[in-house]
Amino acid sequence: MADIARMAGVSVSTVSRALAGSALVPQAKREEILALAQAQGYVINEQARNLRLKKTRTIGIVIPLGHEVGQLISDPFFIELLGRLADEITARDYNVLLTKVARPEPGWQDRLIQSQKADGLIVIGQSDQHEALNAVARTYLPLVVWGAHLPSQIYCSVGSDNIGGARLAVEHLVQKGRRRIAFLGVPSLPEVGLRYDGYRRALAAAGIAEDPALLAPAHFTVDTAYDTVRGLIDSKVPFDAIFAVSDVIAIAAIKALNAAGLRVPDDVAVVGFDDITIAAYVNPPLTSVRQDLARGAKVMIDLLFRRMEGENTPSATMPAELVIRKSCGS
Amino acid sequence: MADIARMAGVSVSTVSRALAGSALVPQAKREEILALAQAQGYVINEQARNLRLKKTRTIGIVIPLGHEVGQLISDPFFIELLGRLADEITARDYNVLLTKVARPEPGWQDRLIQSQKADGLIVIGQSDQHEALNAVARTYLPLVVWGAHLPSQIYCSVGSDNIGGARLAVEHLVQKGRRRIAFLGVPSLPEVGLRYDGYRRALAAAGIAEDPALLAPAHFTVDTAYDTVRGLIDSKVPFDAIFAVSDVIAIAAIKALNAAGLRVPDDVAVVGFDDITIAAYVNPPLTSVRQDLARGAKVMIDLLFRRMEGENTPSATMPAELVIRKSCGS
Repeated sequence: MADIARMAGVSVSTVSRALAGSALVPQAKREEILALAQAQGYVINEQARNLRLKKTRTIGIVIPLGHEVGQLISDPFFIELLGRLADEITARDYNVLLTKVARPEPGWQDRLIQSQKADGLIVIGQSDQHEALNAVARTYLPLVVWGAHLPSQIYCSVGSDNIGGARLAVEHLVQKGRRRIAFLGVPSLPEVGLRYDGYRRALAAAGIAEDPALLAPAHFTVDTAYDTVRGLIDSKVPFDAIFAVSDVIAIAAIKALNAAGLRVPDDVAVVGFDDITIAAYVNPPLTSVRQDLARGAKVMIDLLFRRMEGENTPSATMPAELVIRKSCGS
Repeated sequence: MADIARMAGVSVSTVSRALAGSALVPQAKREEILALAQAQGYVINEQARNLRLKKTRTIGIVIPLGHEVGQLISDPFFIELLGRLADEITARDYNVLLTKVARPEPGWQDRLIQSQKADGLIVIGQSDQHEALNAVARTYLPLVVWGAHLPSQIYCSVGSDNIGGARLAVEHLVQKGRRRIAFLGVPSLPEVGLRYDGYRRALAAAGIAEDPALLAPAHFTVDTAYDTVRGLIDSKVPFDAIFAVSDVIAIAAIKALNAAGLRVPDDVAVVGFDDITIAAYVNPPLTSVRQDLARGAKVMIDLLFRRMEGENTPSATMPAELVIRKSCGS
């Protein structure tokens, strides 16, 4: 840096200020110093500079898996959303710092923020960490969470209309003449809870009494969903449809049904949620509640960047759409 | 920190050393100080500490897209490999720092390394950056690249047997009676070049003369592949099979063929490469050269961690396997 200072005829601290983009150095001089620095092959230690500027030019994406220890980042829903988020973030010339918090311990969110590795945080899924996220939002603005919008919520969230989407799915099954509709999912999770609410509302609207024996609490992994559906079949409780809270577990459900000699949609109609890419391709093609992840990622990153500028943005709920395919009859 | 020093009856610099894990502080005292620090809710500024320790507990994943500016991170191959890598990295309790280098300018790799944001780097795909990667490897050990193994290569790479995989694919098409086999891909890219080599070897072994009119240089995006196949059809050059260098472009090829009234596999057999998840589900299900990305990701991260310990590991080439489905006849 001393070389550059000598060549530019300024002090070392002026060079330092110019390289940091300080307005204290006149623009023409700043550009001259930058050109000299580049010509000298001077490379800025970004980590040291960013620490000084308190800027990292990085967005953190955090996946808390308190509820689903077995779920991998390579899960189709995660990687599709992650890919879309990475497209939006890198298009703004920021980096993505991905962290999985496999067993969130109290204070995980404070440690993450105080480590100062990112200028803003995206959290994918609320897991069982609603209160921890509320605690963050009381003092930390640049946070956007993918998930359900809950009544007691302080943090900014983006997600689909879970109640409305589930209603569409179950109303469609009712229209197709199904009456014994199983719910595949764990309602204690925020998004799943809202989908369960939509399921119950659709049943009530159709005058169908809810049967607690048709609640099949499967987690978001293939294995638990397969086993849960096998358990439902073995229980001999009659059912003619399954509303699954994700496509991944809907596809596992179809496998379990086929393995037991049941045909989809003839014996059991199946609807999923998410409309991941393979939903259109499985056999039979899966009817699913579509979450528009490309749009969702764009909305999340737009909101996050506004929050990084100091704006206290509201949450956003996106309309859910039912994509009808053959898994619940033609 | 002064509070902790007072409670532990030591100096502030001893506390600082203890928190940094220095062996200069006796272990019993170190543990006492750590316990006090935790009880006081003391949170280490990780960025500052890591800068001091020159450790980031982060692995960088870099996607250079010099060749394919239109390719997104949400491309199915990228996200599947990325998801597997993220599983391996987070299982070791490291973070993932994802960077897209959309138009690599000279020196991009030096700037990336000197920014000191990661303890090691994974590069997905060589793009047109073979020499830049060689330049890195001369001075920087913790680097592993997904891609082809090339004769003039200094850096450590992990990839599939591209020549062998392509041979299997084209030999299978020949066995099915196909003689006019188009090659869909741009051979100037390292991995594609090796696949082209395998294609030519399989033709030569079968005594089939190569026809340059059957080289259809499509990039790795759906749109360019679709247009290239439309161009091939419009050129009236006869062909009865396509060997596509990725599943994404093979699926685009099937769409272009169907749009022109050609049936797959009856009129034109199609083989892809990668065996991404949807390959098994498209109509007709796609025969493809399988790259085992779960295993590939594990091998890459194992090698990278050995390199981070100072070991100069060799490159690894994984066997490629042909997964036969209906797109080239039953």
